[in-house]
Amino acid sequence: ALLQAMRDFYQPANLVLKGCKVLITAGPTREPIDPVRFITNRSSGKMGYAVAAAARDLGAEVTLVSGPVQLSAPHQVKRIAVETAQQMLDACQTAVQEADIFIATAAVADYTPVNVATEKIKKSTPTLSLALTKTTDILATLSLANPQLFSVGFAAETHDLLSYARSKLERKGLKMIAANLVGEGKAFDQDQNALEVIWQDGSTSLPEMDKQRLAQELMHLISTHYQTWKQQDGTH
Amino acid sequence: ALLQAMRDFYQPANLVLKGCKVLITAGPTREPIDPVRFITNRSSGKMGYAVAAAARDLGAEVTLVSGPVQLSAPHQVKRIAVETAQQMLDACQTAVQEADIFIATAAVADYTPVNVATEKIKKSTPTLSLALTKTTDILATLSLANPQLFSVGFAAETHDLLSYARSKLERKGLKMIAANLVGEGKAFDQDQNALEVIWQDGSTSLPEMDKQRLAQELMHLISTHYQTWKQQDGTH
Repeated sequence: ALLQAMRDFYQPANLVLKGCKVLITAGPTREPIDPVRFITNRSSGKMGYAVAAAARDLGAEVTLVSGPVQLSAPHQVKRIAVETAQQMLDACQTAVQEADIFIATAAVADYTPVNVATEKIKKSTPTLSLALTKTTDILATLSLANPQLFSVGFAAETHDLLSYARSKLERKGLKMIAANLVGEGKAFDQDQNALEVIWQDGSTSLPEMDKQRLAQELMHLISTHYQTWKQQDGTH
Repeated sequence: ALLQAMRDFYQPANLVLKGCKVLITAGPTREPIDPVRFITNRSSGKMGYAVAAAARDLGAEVTLVSGPVQLSAPHQVKRIAVETAQQMLDACQTAVQEADIFIATAAVADYTPVNVATEKIKKSTPTLSLALTKTTDILATLSLANPQLFSVGFAAETHDLLSYARSKLERKGLKMIAANLVGEGKAFDQDQNALEVIWQDGSTSLPEMDKQRLAQELMHLISTHYQTWKQQDGTH
């Protein structure tokens, strides 16, 4: 708290997001198959929590909608705990009404079981076919419905990183997207990561570094682009 | 360490499993769908880790084959970390050669995807049918193949607890089974639990208590029945 107070005193010019409301999603979601089993993904939430702390350090008022992770909520950040993709969507749709910037770092399940068994499924058959249906794309839905929002996405890919990321930027109406390679020990559950940050007419590489520092660099980029966009937006 | 030393000094008679090798499985398994997504279940590993510590406190040499959990290995316990049901089976098949008692607390995935995609599956179709196939039943396989082993199972059920548990005891050739209700806030991820412990000609209820104490009570029951069985076994 003393350190924070000293930072606030000596670097008031750095609180570039003061008065800004930032909504961040983080972690995985869990899609229940029955009361015991579920589908999920390899997301520790570390990157999203680091982005939340970095946004707070720039003076923003931060709401963090988080799937199940083993992390404490960063100091001064309002955390809303959710489990499924549908719960994350619902929480975001309420919180987004007040937000200026939306940063979707969560690894939301793309598919969820069509039917959730109310009792534990017994292993009576040698094989089983699990019917899945697409979840609502939280990022695309909120971004396209709220053009006044500065929406930033994340893309985790095992291959063709840049082309997938740029296609997502266009399709989901994003202002920026941060892309990283995953799989084979990369990114998930690691303390280090590297990002390609892409916007409509440019991009930059943030090389491999600690997720805390990477989040600070990313938030610096986001706030710079946000300020520019807001000024342009005000002129037309 | 001092406390342990004092315990050893004042209660040498309690080291009833001295010279005994106990193999314990704990935690969930993860069955990959692709490099990012997987099927798993609600198991924190707390019960299994508490059983491992309780067995060690009775003087046993403990090997703990564990799925991904957020717990440290208990002191003096040899932990083997695995991820999938197949990896858990492989690790157990090696470790069981030396074991006297086998306690299967792990929530092993009953089904695993038939095909594991090497690249992240793109959400191109609105629905998806995921083909699953049964995993090898680790407990039944090891128990039936090793009649010299004192095998103890766990049964987590959302309903019909006792009838399912007794049927598992018979079918899997177990000496004992510990059964508990799960779902709706029960057992998984909780610090408390209650167990029905069942053997061929009897049963007993361990009421809701701290998982540490519950594990001690359970290990006391297991060691008593193990000693009796070993004596009978030696006479015919």
